[in-house]
Amino acid sequence: MHSTDIKSYMQSIGRKARAASCLIAKAETTTKNQALIAMAEAIGRNEQELLTANAHDLDTAKTKGLEAALVDRLTLSVKGIANMAEGLLQIAALADPVGEISGLNYRPSGIQVGKMRVPLGVIGIIYEARPNVTADAAGLCLKAGNAAILRGGSEAIYSNQAIAACVRKGLKIAGLPETAVQVVETTDRTAVGELITMQDYVDVIVPRGGKGLIERISNEARVPVIKHLDGVCHVYIDDQADFDKAVKIADNAKTQRYGTCNTMETLLVHSNIAEEILPVLSKIYLDKNVELRGDDAARAIIAQMNPATEADWLTEYLAPVLSIRVVADLDQAIDHINCYGSQHTDAIVTENYSRARRFLREVDSSSVMVNTTTRFADGFEYGLGAEIGISTDKIHARGPVGLEGLTCQKYIVLGDGQIRQ
Amino acid sequence: MHSTDIKSYMQSIGRKARAASCLIAKAETTTKNQALIAMAEAIGRNEQELLTANAHDLDTAKTKGLEAALVDRLTLSVKGIANMAEGLLQIAALADPVGEISGLNYRPSGIQVGKMRVPLGVIGIIYEARPNVTADAAGLCLKAGNAAILRGGSEAIYSNQAIAACVRKGLKIAGLPETAVQVVETTDRTAVGELITMQDYVDVIVPRGGKGLIERISNEARVPVIKHLDGVCHVYIDDQADFDKAVKIADNAKTQRYGTCNTMETLLVHSNIAEEILPVLSKIYLDKNVELRGDDAARAIIAQMNPATEADWLTEYLAPVLSIRVVADLDQAIDHINCYGSQHTDAIVTENYSRARRFLREVDSSSVMVNTTTRFADGFEYGLGAEIGISTDKIHARGPVGLEGLTCQKYIVLGDGQIRQ
Repeated sequence: MHSTDIKSYMQSIGRKARAASCLIAKAETTTKNQALIAMAEAIGRNEQELLTANAHDLDTAKTKGLEAALVDRLTLSVKGIANMAEGLLQIAALADPVGEISGLNYRPSGIQVGKMRVPLGVIGIIYEARPNVTADAAGLCLKAGNAAILRGGSEAIYSNQAIAACVRKGLKIAGLPETAVQVVETTDRTAVGELITMQDYVDVIVPRGGKGLIERISNEARVPVIKHLDGVCHVYIDDQADFDKAVKIADNAKTQRYGTCNTMETLLVHSNIAEEILPVLSKIYLDKNVELRGDDAARAIIAQMNPATEADWLTEYLAPVLSIRVVADLDQAIDHINCYGSQHTDAIVTENYSRARRFLREVDSSSVMVNTTTRFADGFEYGLGAEIGISTDKIHARGPVGLEGLTCQKYIVLGDGQIRQ
Repeated sequence: MHSTDIKSYMQSIGRKARAASCLIAKAETTTKNQALIAMAEAIGRNEQELLTANAHDLDTAKTKGLEAALVDRLTLSVKGIANMAEGLLQIAALADPVGEISGLNYRPSGIQVGKMRVPLGVIGIIYEARPNVTADAAGLCLKAGNAAILRGGSEAIYSNQAIAACVRKGLKIAGLPETAVQVVETTDRTAVGELITMQDYVDVIVPRGGKGLIERISNEARVPVIKHLDGVCHVYIDDQADFDKAVKIADNAKTQRYGTCNTMETLLVHSNIAEEILPVLSKIYLDKNVELRGDDAARAIIAQMNPATEADWLTEYLAPVLSIRVVADLDQAIDHINCYGSQHTDAIVTENYSRARRFLREVDSSSVMVNTTTRFADGFEYGLGAEIGISTDKIHARGPVGLEGLTCQKYIVLGDGQIRQ
């Protein structure tokens, strides 16, 4: 397509999404659930078609020599397909956030004022290789009463369109407009540029992918963006920590999975406990082939550490590498986190009540934890049911974003003829 | 100043604001209240200095031939000064939103997950002539735990700096950093361009002023903007309305004040009740010299109406002008509002339960009302204590924005050594 054609194609998608969003916003809970269940059934019934479409994408990926990690994310297995369907059924089982009324109180004037939770409208999702995002994002946007425009990576175009066909089938069975979930069918990059600047048709953009993609989108968007930049997560072991809990948590936060955004990247240890705990922890990490990079004080205790540079404190390794710093006290720990962290997820291990209370209040991150692992920062673990992403922004939503983050609250006012004096 | 000097001046303001925001975020409630009370006292004590500074601004305004409405907004009276001080005392009396913990529940893993309300960080306020915004905005930002950078109109520069001196005095007395509230001292417009693009130092921008100013800022900002565009507010009189309530509300919504954003600009009347109610209402409006502009059906009932054009349905008059349309039913009323309205404030007058319920759900505006006047859409009337503005955005905050809108919620997680399996 020519770029003028892409502009008019995207405008047409936008117009249809806006029209559909009005119908989805007022759809009844049972209708939305019926659509979600029908989508899950369609995905189950079309397993073979989905595998074939995915094989097509995988062939292209291999021809182009895509890296193994990307091919891995692109691959749809039989189990992956079943999980996608199960995810939609779980979303159907969640409470409907739309229309929830809260805080309805009488005011001195006699009017009642409260808030009603309402959809955002049209949500644009921009993602990379994972085809399962197509089903997850469609399901979450629909349940929250929004229309969705999905723009997946060009590597997954056949898989995404096959999943989109199942989504449309579900919408149709429930009598909802099929345009409530649209998958952009061109792989041309100018389509993204259109999507993130169509202020009349798109209310919010959720980009999912690497930091480069998200920064580019944030800089060019004219529509609000709910974004997730990096996860430079910390665990701080206080000198009043329970030793065994500290070891268990520091191990789990780093080694349970290396490539996730809520994995610990820097360990901070109080100087009073460093000599006792670092040898125990280092043995665990080195046995698991985690490379350690420490400051001078840490390296004075553990010889097998490379020196950490200033850049290490700022780095999200997403790999078996850990930087370690010995700190003098809680203040230094909090200062380090607020200075070098990415406001994602940070934890303290301590039995000291006042220090736990201060850490919770003063660490400015989307999730702040006491005596548990950063790996719990996740929509499912938090009880949101599912997440469309994790926000490291400060307005609208912080942390895992589920159905509630895809809605907002308007004011409702009930009166009985009151007027303003 | 040269534009490079302005850039470094603004960067320096930003750096100081960021540093101050960390201290303000953890300041105790009593300390913040002490500062607010001390600010109010300083304003009271410096009445003469404030009047002198304001006289200076007014002289310049008159020399430049500024229009009367602007001069009116710029003027600080003895009563206005007392109101400013009183406003700060009212903010001191409000509950502290910072640190509020909600929804703390146990999860199957054994962790407790909840949310804590936290400040946004640094707030940039850009406003026009009204000097009282300096005190209001400073007070609200401080109570919500934020640092503020205030950029008022050049017309009010002396008044704003005199008020800012009182604000700094209050901060100093309470032992808080005086840089927690900074007033930009240059009237050069490039300072605004810097303010709205300093992503490292500013977390959100709240522009207060005309639509032109707000659109320009929204388009150029690289920082999130909480914005208030126009208020094209509607009252829909249903055929099952109580006649007397409908007359009272339609009168009040238009004529109590003409220049406010929550004033009704379009009246929608059900065709079954139009012949009965429009003569009564027209007499009220015409007696008050309100110009009426109607569609054909309305003009067939009331001769003294000019014809309304398509442009009228989209216009915020802010003046004694009212457009009137006769509609066939509730659906047409809702469609008209969602199509031509500005998602600000809209009201239905009806005794019909199901229609009221549908109107509340389906009208996509920041405030939706039943049987009361749009003029109630106001932070004080809603019990927010004060407002920094009214948001017509869909993310973060809709409607009047008070202390809560100047905060966000982070997740807190409490454990006892739990790790992820």
